[in-house]
Amino acid sequence: MLIVMQSHATEEQIRAVCARIESLGLKAHPIPGSLRTAIGITGNQGSLDLGVLESMSGVVECIPVSKPYKLVSRDAKEEDTVLRIPTPSGDVLVGGKHIALVAGPCAVETEDQCMTVGAQLKATGVRLFRGGAYKPRTSPYSFQGLGEEGLKILAKVRDAYGFGIITEAIDNESLALVEDYADVIQIGARNMQNFSLLKRAGRAKKPVLLKRGMSATLDEFLMAAEYILSEGNYNVMLCERGVRTFSDFSRNTLDLAVVPAVQKRSHLPILVDPSHGTGKRNKVLPLSRAAVAVGANGLLVEVHHDPEKALSDGMQSILPEEFAELTVEVKQVANVLHRIVN
Amino acid sequence: MLIVMQSHATEEQIRAVCARIESLGLKAHPIPGSLRTAIGITGNQGSLDLGVLESMSGVVECIPVSKPYKLVSRDAKEEDTVLRIPTPSGDVLVGGKHIALVAGPCAVETEDQCMTVGAQLKATGVRLFRGGAYKPRTSPYSFQGLGEEGLKILAKVRDAYGFGIITEAIDNESLALVEDYADVIQIGARNMQNFSLLKRAGRAKKPVLLKRGMSATLDEFLMAAEYILSEGNYNVMLCERGVRTFSDFSRNTLDLAVVPAVQKRSHLPILVDPSHGTGKRNKVLPLSRAAVAVGANGLLVEVHHDPEKALSDGMQSILPEEFAELTVEVKQVANVLHRIVN
Amino acid sequence: MLIVMQSHATEEQIRAVCARIESLGLKAHPIPGSLRTAIGITGNQGSLDLGVLESMSGVVECIPVSKPYKLVSRDAKEEDTVLRIPTPSGDVLVGGKHIALVAGPCAVETEDQCMTVGAQLKATGVRLFRGGAYKPRTSPYSFQGLGEEGLKILAKVRDAYGFGIITEAIDNESLALVEDYADVIQIGARNMQNFSLLKRAGRAKKPVLLKRGMSATLDEFLMAAEYILSEGNYNVMLCERGVRTFSDFSRNTLDLAVVPAVQKRSHLPILVDPSHGTGKRNKVLPLSRAAVAVGANGLLVEVHHDPEKALSDGMQSILPEEFAELTVEVKQVANVLHRIVN
Amino acid sequence: MLIVMQSHATEEQIRAVCARIESLGLKAHPIPGSLRTAIGITGNQGSLDLGVLESMSGVVECIPVSKPYKLVSRDAKEEDTVLRIPTPSGDVLVGGKHIALVAGPCAVETEDQCMTVGAQLKATGVRLFRGGAYKPRTSPYSFQGLGEEGLKILAKVRDAYGFGIITEAIDNESLALVEDYADVIQIGARNMQNFSLLKRAGRAKKPVLLKRGMSATLDEFLMAAEYILSEGNYNVMLCERGVRTFSDFSRNTLDLAVVPAVQKRSHLPILVDPSHGTGKRNKVLPLSRAAVAVGANGLLVEVHHDPEKALSDGMQSILPEEFAELTVEVKQVANVLHRIVN
Repeated sequence: MLIVMQSHATEEQIRAVCARIESLGLKAHPIPGSLRTAIGITGNQGSLDLGVLESMSGVVECIPVSKPYKLVSRDAKEEDTVLRIPTPSGDVLVGGKHIALVAGPCAVETEDQCMTVGAQLKATGVRLFRGGAYKPRTSPYSFQGLGEEGLKILAKVRDAYGFGIITEAIDNESLALVEDYADVIQIGARNMQNFSLLKRAGRAKKPVLLKRGMSATLDEFLMAAEYILSEGNYNVMLCERGVRTFSDFSRNTLDLAVVPAVQKRSHLPILVDPSHGTGKRNKVLPLSRAAVAVGANGLLVEVHHDPEKALSDGMQSILPEEFAELTVEVKQVANVLHRIVN
Repeated sequence: MLIVMQSHATEEQIRAVCARIESLGLKAHPIPGSLRTAIGITGNQGSLDLGVLESMSGVVECIPVSKPYKLVSRDAKEEDTVLRIPTPSGDVLVGGKHIALVAGPCAVETEDQCMTVGAQLKATGVRLFRGGAYKPRTSPYSFQGLGEEGLKILAKVRDAYGFGIITEAIDNESLALVEDYADVIQIGARNMQNFSLLKRAGRAKKPVLLKRGMSATLDEFLMAAEYILSEGNYNVMLCERGVRTFSDFSRNTLDLAVVPAVQKRSHLPILVDPSHGTGKRNKVLPLSRAAVAVGANGLLVEVHHDPEKALSDGMQSILPEEFAELTVEVKQVANVLHRIVN
Repeated sequence: MLIVMQSHATEEQIRAVCARIESLGLKAHPIPGSLRTAIGITGNQGSLDLGVLESMSGVVECIPVSKPYKLVSRDAKEEDTVLRIPTPSGDVLVGGKHIALVAGPCAVETEDQCMTVGAQLKATGVRLFRGGAYKPRTSPYSFQGLGEEGLKILAKVRDAYGFGIITEAIDNESLALVEDYADVIQIGARNMQNFSLLKRAGRAKKPVLLKRGMSATLDEFLMAAEYILSEGNYNVMLCERGVRTFSDFSRNTLDLAVVPAVQKRSHLPILVDPSHGTGKRNKVLPLSRAAVAVGANGLLVEVHHDPEKALSDGMQSILPEEFAELTVEVKQVANVLHRIVN
Repeated sequence: MLIVMQSHATEEQIRAVCARIESLGLKAHPIPGSLRTAIGITGNQGSLDLGVLESMSGVVECIPVSKPYKLVSRDAKEEDTVLRIPTPSGDVLVGGKHIALVAGPCAVETEDQCMTVGAQLKATGVRLFRGGAYKPRTSPYSFQGLGEEGLKILAKVRDAYGFGIITEAIDNESLALVEDYADVIQIGARNMQNFSLLKRAGRAKKPVLLKRGMSATLDEFLMAAEYILSEGNYNVMLCERGVRTFSDFSRNTLDLAVVPAVQKRSHLPILVDPSHGTGKRNKVLPLSRAAVAVGANGLLVEVHHDPEKALSDGMQSILPEEFAELTVEVKQVANVLHRIVN
């Protein structure tokens, strides 16, 4: 923390701020400048909220310096974390040089639907299957998902095609079920700061895919992951899915620069969801190429064999044959970066 | 829903879109223009996701027309809802001409702290007391609240001073306890789209104060309230607490225009939280005056008798004597609007 | 500027950064912490762009500390600036305790229109009249203003009713004309960082009203004013007119907290434009009350005697009789703050 | 335009709105729904501001339907525009399958600097050189550019290395000079809605590169280009350079989805500036790959041979050898899309 004093702050005011800092068990480092004095603070372990010093007389501003995350940081672990997702057809690696593709419908609607999409996806070579059994919907009158019945359908898809299964949990009850039935537990954007759910996920035995909240800063995103690691679960992958801005031509603004920014600060893998990130079917392919080109460790893509009849998000779902084409192109882009897909 | 066709869309494309609409059991109304044709759709009860028509050939865009909320809407109930919050010293009214002030510390820290603030607040005439027993904190290493012990302290404050108690629930477990101990259940900004929690609050026997999410649109805010009403709990008040924007001089950007916007569309009361809305102690008083001037039905203000020692949010907490001054000024502003405070 | 080093930065890296700083003629102040070292820099007069140090090895981040504005700052002048706008009926004061109301149509359309609105506004007691002769419009096919002919009409309105005239200049050519015909030169939001125009306004003999850009931070806003003062024109008033955010129910998000924020940092007066700030006629009155309640030094309101026939911005213009009501209410709110309207 | 009526709007109110529409010379198309009536409007040539109908009694909302741009639209010209930039070493093509790379320092500082960078860039094969002689800087105390002297240096760089020259104009005076000395006239983000400058650029004889404003919607961006085309200059290329959001880890948020969005609506080429788009040197390479992967028609990259001594934007400038590496990688990515670089 750095305290910036007013240009006309008195010696006494500066001394008072230093005394307060020392009284908190910290060390004050005054830095007299030509215009004003600043005071550096060291010794804070992160538990003290020093912003309050801003209200002392003579103080202009308190500027936080140290980042609050620890376990997710490259300070804690320098090399990339590579997750192993166990599937009936062997482990899928995510992180470092390994790019994972995840595909499937937005919502699990019927066994038929999932089996049909599953069969078509199997042919594309994809090894991780996604589909929502618990759907957080803006309206209470929209389809809310099949619940445990949906999880059972997903388990059948795994048995039939050898996929690893990724599906979302929305509260502690559903998380316990998802932990039983699925291979990766997804925490959605709307729950990125549902700290009760994050702690529960931190005690789960399965890897977690954590989506960035719609207006989460990078620090908040990493701190949300820190909640999971701090409870003992180190198998976390992050996912950018677009943030909310004034820009109105797409559902969200996909913030691809977050990928190298995460990779600079953290050892955790980061995927990109171009389906929610754009909300438009015709932007999924170009943004998928871009996500791999920027260095993402994977893609999460909504695929439906009949998008116009989808119970949710049909507008952003692509067809299995479009996903096959996408797979070919992102592999070519991955080659440029010497990365391995799946 | 309105479908806008390309200027060079063919007759056949237009017919195909109309046929698809009719096949869904809806009615299509083509409107031929000089440049292009648009197609109005009627008959949708809100359950069909028509955005998918955007991918049909010849279509430029799908524009939603009807709003999806029902029970919260003035279409459902024209007159203002006035909530009655029962307190040991009689009901407090919120809504219509009645403005409610709510004050107290960000977090319940100790019985001493709450009793001290409570005594000082009692003297200002305020009748609703707030304080967090469950604290959603960005960092897992920050103070997370006292939990049920905190709720017991709040109950003692009520007994001692006759306040009604407002406190936050963060998951289904804490909601059950809050329902027992408190008078109003608060759902925080980070949980505005925690639909599992909203449904549970909709089955609670106590009124609910629902805060706007950091990047929630007006429609999403009203739809979150709709979740609560749709489960049977009609005692809901909303609360604007600032949204996230590029603007970096305050913690959030307080969006006061949302107050008349909500009041135009919905019968529910809407309060303003100038403490979180600005994150700066010196802005709480001016923004409190502004909130009442714009027509808010109440204020939620963080007050601490020793903000520099507060375990959270000390930076935005004001002193009890500052709150007393605030009370005087907002009452004068309320007079201009012929509103009654508390 | 503060340089934050990596936790595992070597002594050598720290020495290299300090050496670079000293080689630039500045002073380096290393602050060793428990986790990492930070390095304070003093002696920079604002001309060196130190962000580049961020690319030195071992550096995490460069954090700017000193604010770059000088003449607009309270460091340069502690007491409030009170502007005097000369009008045929005597000076109008703006700033400090003095609140100025400015009203008139968005665009000067015809002499008739301006005279009609002018007569009706005269009756409300307002003393400053606004109206655009040069209109920056999103579309090249929209009405672009009457140009010099419009300025002549405004001069007639001044002669007829004794108003001071405020009107916008959009380039160096129009600024020279506005300087001749009007009493206050307005620089619009879209030109807030048209530095060529700001410099020209800095050499003008008339006061300047500078509107905040749609996505301008507070620092950028104050720096834009600094451009005008740095050329010698100290008669500047600022104006908040809403910023662009994700929030979609109003045209812009009126950021009222900027008023106390400006007043803390700068001695210049700041007004609020609730018409552009909301873009909706029914929000002008409540937001006008709120603006005065938050402490604004004035209001800029669009008034048209026949808004539905207005050539621009009819949607946000109120009627003269509505403005009369607004005047009454804001005077009552101003009383609460012991401020004087006009 | 579509007018949405309240659910309890009376027949009379609906008739009044229709009558008003017809009185404006337009055609009203009432669409009775189960909940409410909507009214479509046809016949508007874009000059009437119909938003004002929103204030008629019984009206909920006015929803614009037709897009206001014409000449830039694919409705006006279906095939991609391919610009030819004449250079001493032959035309450079931009648009369609042709990707153009533009590189050079942020600011022209000295002849030596430009010649040194120029020589190193020549070796990478790049054919378009950028450098600012007029610099729009946030602070009046920062380096403002060399003006005409800078343009003369750029002309020497062209003569020495055969580059085409792109440089920014900031007002009508500088535009006349840039038109004389350079090959492409750049309009910067801060001037995207400087309509006076856009009109002047529309009368220029040279191609124009128009950057997206920091908070410009897609429609505003295309309308700004429409200003240039409407004055007769059809040689316009667009450039995404990042928008302003809450996201604080990079200077701006690069909105890559705008590339396919522009290409769907307009025939004009669109480039990407990853230097301003991220503001960080280490993000330029990954975002350059991503920009080409998403389908951009070119890149604008800041390159400086000694970034730590750059007079502006050193923080986001890369070295010539880094640019050489970038060139290799983006060519590989371009191959995936069957595009030709330069």
